[in-house]
Amino acid sequence: MSADRLAGVGVSPGAGYGPAHRLVREIPEPPRGSRHGGDAEAERRRAERALEQVAADLSARGDRAGGEARDVLAAQAMMALDPGLASVVAELVGQGVSAPRAVFEAFGKYRDLLAGAGDYLAGRVADLDDIRDRAVAALEGLPLPGLPQDPPEPYVLVARDLAPADTALLDPAAVAAFVTEEGGPTSHTAILARSLGVPAVVGCAGATAIPPGTRVLVDGSTGAVRLSPTEEEVARAMRADADQDALLATVTGPGATADGHAVPLLANVGGPADIAPALAAGAEGVGLFRTEFLFLDREDPPTWEEQQDAYRAVFEAFSGSRVVVRVLDAGADKPLDFLPPPAPEPNPALGERGVRMFRHYPDVLAAQLDALARAAEGTSARVQVMAPMVATVEEAAWFADACRTAGLPSSGVMIEIPAAALRAADIAAVTGFFSIGTNDLTQYALAADREAGALAGLQDPWHPAVLDLVALAASAAAAAGRECGLCGEAAADPALACVFAGLGVTSLSMAALALPRVRAALARHTLDACRRAAAAARAANSAAAARAAARAKLPALAELSL
Amino acid sequence: MSADRLAGVGVSPGAGYGPAHRLVREIPEPPRGSRHGGDAEAERRRAERALEQVAADLSARGDRAGGEARDVLAAQAMMALDPGLASVVAELVGQGVSAPRAVFEAFGKYRDLLAGAGDYLAGRVADLDDIRDRAVAALEGLPLPGLPQDPPEPYVLVARDLAPADTALLDPAAVAAFVTEEGGPTSHTAILARSLGVPAVVGCAGATAIPPGTRVLVDGSTGAVRLSPTEEEVARAMRADADQDALLATVTGPGATADGHAVPLLANVGGPADIAPALAAGAEGVGLFRTEFLFLDREDPPTWEEQQDAYRAVFEAFSGSRVVVRVLDAGADKPLDFLPPPAPEPNPALGERGVRMFRHYPDVLAAQLDALARAAEGTSARVQVMAPMVATVEEAAWFADACRTAGLPSSGVMIEIPAAALRAADIAAVTGFFSIGTNDLTQYALAADREAGALAGLQDPWHPAVLDLVALAASAAAAAGRECGLCGEAAADPALACVFAGLGVTSLSMAALALPRVRAALARHTLDACRRAAAAARAANSAAAARAAARAKLPALAELSL
Repeated sequence: MSADRLAGVGVSPGAGYGPAHRLVREIPEPPRGSRHGGDAEAERRRAERALEQVAADLSARGDRAGGEARDVLAAQAMMALDPGLASVVAELVGQGVSAPRAVFEAFGKYRDLLAGAGDYLAGRVADLDDIRDRAVAALEGLPLPGLPQDPPEPYVLVARDLAPADTALLDPAAVAAFVTEEGGPTSHTAILARSLGVPAVVGCAGATAIPPGTRVLVDGSTGAVRLSPTEEEVARAMRADADQDALLATVTGPGATADGHAVPLLANVGGPADIAPALAAGAEGVGLFRTEFLFLDREDPPTWEEQQDAYRAVFEAFSGSRVVVRVLDAGADKPLDFLPPPAPEPNPALGERGVRMFRHYPDVLAAQLDALARAAEGTSARVQVMAPMVATVEEAAWFADACRTAGLPSSGVMIEIPAAALRAADIAAVTGFFSIGTNDLTQYALAADREAGALAGLQDPWHPAVLDLVALAASAAAAAGRECGLCGEAAADPALACVFAGLGVTSLSMAALALPRVRAALARHTLDACRRAAAAARAANSAAAARAAARAKLPALAELSL
Repeated sequence: MSADRLAGVGVSPGAGYGPAHRLVREIPEPPRGSRHGGDAEAERRRAERALEQVAADLSARGDRAGGEARDVLAAQAMMALDPGLASVVAELVGQGVSAPRAVFEAFGKYRDLLAGAGDYLAGRVADLDDIRDRAVAALEGLPLPGLPQDPPEPYVLVARDLAPADTALLDPAAVAAFVTEEGGPTSHTAILARSLGVPAVVGCAGATAIPPGTRVLVDGSTGAVRLSPTEEEVARAMRADADQDALLATVTGPGATADGHAVPLLANVGGPADIAPALAAGAEGVGLFRTEFLFLDREDPPTWEEQQDAYRAVFEAFSGSRVVVRVLDAGADKPLDFLPPPAPEPNPALGERGVRMFRHYPDVLAAQLDALARAAEGTSARVQVMAPMVATVEEAAWFADACRTAGLPSSGVMIEIPAAALRAADIAAVTGFFSIGTNDLTQYALAADREAGALAGLQDPWHPAVLDLVALAASAAAAAGRECGLCGEAAADPALACVFAGLGVTSLSMAALALPRVRAALARHTLDACRRAAAAARAANSAAAARAAARAKLPALAELSL
C-alpha cells in the first residue's frame, strides 16, 4: 500500500474512524492438488495450530457471551479439536497435501458422514463448514467470512459491495463507517448507511486492498478515505462532525417543508429496543411497527397475553400519536415453524407470504387482530393496522373485513407489489390507507432479488419506474381522500425523502437515526421545490440520472452536507 | 358416483373424449404407526407384489422407449427388486407395520445412505423416491403422481387445478381434454388449454371424484362433462366439433380485424418439430423462436456449426417472413450446466437470468449472435433478435450494441419486467422493437410465482394491472414508431387477443394450434370494437370482471363458440 489517501463518492455524511475490517462472503476452496514445500511435520504443526487457534477463539467468544451460546460455541470448539479429524489431516499432509487443502478435505469426509446420518447431525453441517472456513482462513491469511463477532471497538467495514444479505445481522453501534470498492450513490450500501446513520463512501478504488486492521478515517460527505491518520486529523474530523450534528439538531418539531406543508416523520419499530431511540429522535409516531419479533424463532405462536403486552408497550410509549402496525409478514426470508407454506417453494419471495399466508391460517390473523384491538383499548395511541403483500382488491377487502370483525376500524394495506401500485385507485376504494414499502416494490418492479448481492445494481429505489409506481399510489390515495405513507429504507435518503414528498407521499417512516437529516432536508425546501425535484427525477431514464436531476433541484442538500 | 353428468365452465372450445386420468402431485406419506391386520405373511407378499409390479412396469416402459431410456429404467427396476430392501420391508411387516408404511420406511433408510454417499449416488435419490411413490400408490390404490407415461390413447386430464409445473412436460397430442374442479376462465388451465387447442372445463364440482379410467366426453364450449357416454353421443359431439373446425378454417389469410387493421399472427417455435404445424396453421412468421432447445441438457454449449444449422432450418422454412429469435434465456427454471449463476440463488426467478446472465458470459452471447448472423446470410427471412429479462435502458443499449457488433441490425427486447413496461418510452429510444412476454410480466406484476400451484389465482393475465402494463408498452412503442408484438400464452385466448389488439399490440405470437381461433375472432371484430373491449377491461377492478367486461364488447365470440 503506497497511497495513504483513497477517494470515492460520499453517500452518507459524517465522519467515521476505526480499524478496517474486510468483508468476504466465503472462503474459496483451496485448489485441488495444492502441495506443501516438503517439510510435512512443520506443515502438520501449522494445521494443528490453526485448528487450536480456531477452538480457542470459539471458546473465548462463548465465555464472553455466556448462557446458551457458551455451550454451543464450546461444542463447536470441541469439533475443531477432534482427534479423528487431526489424524486425517496428518495423513494427507504426510502425502504432500498442503495444510489448507488437507484441512478442507478432512472436513469434507466428516461433512459427508454427518449429512447422511439423520436430521440432528445433518444440522451440524453448517457448524462444521464454519470451523473449516475459519481454519482455512487462518492458514491462508484471509479474513473470516462475515461480520466481526464482538468487536472490541467500532470498525470500518470494507467490502467490494454490500448486499442486504451481508448486513442483515449488522449491529449499527459496532460500525464506524462503510467503504466499498463498487456501488454508486443509489446502491444498497448507500441506502443502508443513511438508514443507520453510518458514514459511507462507495465507488472507492483500492478499498479492498486496505490491509485489515489499518486505522481508517472516513468522510462520508466528501468521499475522502484517509489511512493511518494523525490524532489531530481524527480530532478535527470528529469536531466537524459534531458541529454538523449540532446544526441539524437545531431543526426540531414536526416534519414539514420550508413552506409549512406537513410531512409527519415516523419511526420504524421492530421491537421494544427501538422505542427509546425513536422517542429521542422526535418521531411523531410509528409508521411501521413490525410484529415479526414476537413470532420468529419459536415453535408455537405467542399467546394472546404475550401479544397484548408487547403491543401495549408500544402504544403507551406513543400515546396520543399514530402507531401503524403491520400484521405478521411470514414466509419468504422470514419462515415460521408454525406457519409452513402449503408446498415447497422454488421462489419464496414470489410465494406464500404476507396476506397470502393468512388465507391459509385465518386463525393466526384473527388472534393477532384481537390482541391488537384489546391492547389498543385504554391507550390514546391512534392504532392503525395494515396487511403486507396485498396484490388485489379482493385481498384488500378481505383484510379490511377481518379488521372490522376484530373491532379495528382503521385498516390499510402495504403497497409493495407493482399490481397494487398500478391499480391503487381500485384498492383505495376498499381500504383506509396506504403505506408504500419501497424495498419489496423495487424488488418486484425490477425483478431483482433483494437477497442477491450481484444484482445490487438493479435494486435501486431511485429507478424512475419505482418513482412512477410511488406517484401512482400517492395520486390514487389523494383522489380517494386517503393517507399514503412510505416506510422503506429509501425514506432515509434526504433527497429521496424530498422527492417522495413531491410525489404526494403524506408521511415518511424510517429508522430513528435517519430522522434528523430528513427533517432538516425537508425544512429547507418548499413543497414546490420537492415537486420539481420529483418531476426531474421521473423525467430521467436511469436511477443515477434521476438522483442527479433531483439533487440539482434541491440546492440546500449540498449546503447541509446531506 | 351416481351422477353421469357434471357441469362446469367451458373455457377452451371443442369436444374431447377419453379415459379419465386423475392428476395428483404427490403420494402422501403413509401415517407413522400404521399397522396391518395381523397376517404378516400376507402383508409381506402384498408388499413384494407391489414392488414386483413397479419393476415390471418400469422394465416394460424401458422396452417400449428403447435406447438409453431402456438402460435407465432397467436400473430403476433393479432398485425396486433389491433383496436388501425386501428384507427391511419383511422385518418391519413382521413387527406389525402396514405394507405401505414398511415400504416407505425401508426406502427412507436407503435414501439416507445414498444422500450421504457422494455426488453420483445422491443423484439417485430422486429415482428411489419415484419407486417408493409407485409402490406406495399401488398398495394404497392411488393413481401415480404426475402425467401418465406413454398412454395408449389420448386421456382426459382431471385435477383439482393445473399449475405450469404440472403441465411443463405435457404432450398435447396425448390429451383429449382438461377438466378441473377449481379454477376460473382466466386460470392457467384455461390459458394453457387454449394455447394447446385442448378442450377444457374448469370449476367443475365433483370432477376429482370421477373414477380413474371412466370414459368421459367433454364439451369445452358449454362446460358439460358426460361420464360413460353412448357411442352415438360421442359421434354426435365429434361431428359438431369437426363442423366448428371447418367453419373456423374458412377464415384464412393474414391476421386482421373486420375493418382490415392488420395484426400479423405468428407462431411460437421451440424446436424443429414446431415448424410444420406452424406452416400448416398459416403462421405469417415466427414471433418467438426459443433457442433453449439447443442448450438444455448438455455439458458444453452447442458448437457454432450446430447453432447455425438449427437457425438456418427455421429461417429457410419461413423465407420471406419475419422470424423473431430470442437469445438463450438461461437461469431460473432453465439452469444450464455451463452457465451456472455466480452464487446460489434463494429466488432464481428474481435472479441471474436472461440478459443478466450474458453480462457474466458475454462470449456465449457473442457466439450465439455470430451464428445467427451467419445463418441469416443467404436466407430471405427477416431475422430479428431479442433479449429476455431486460429491466433497464442500459441493458437494452448493451444488447443492441452486441447485436450491431455481430452484424445483426434488427434487435429488440422482451418486455416482461414491470419496470421495462413502465419505462418503455425510455427503452424504445435505444432498441428496435418490443415483444411483450405476458407470462413473466404477470408473475412479476402480481409477485406470484408461475411455478407455485397454490397461487394460480394470482397468475392471471386478465388482471387489469397487466393490461395497464401492456398498454404502456404498446403506446410507448407507437409513439417511437416501433413494433410491439406479444408472445405469451395469453395471446391464444381469442378474447384477450382482441383486447391486446385494442391496446395497440402490433402482432400476436402463439402456439400454432391456437392460430385459427384467434384469426377468426379478430376477423369478426373491428379495431374499434377491440379498443372498446380493452377500455372496458382496464376499467374493471379484477381479472374476472375484466374478462366479463371485454367479452360483453366482443359479441361474435359467443356466436363462434369461442
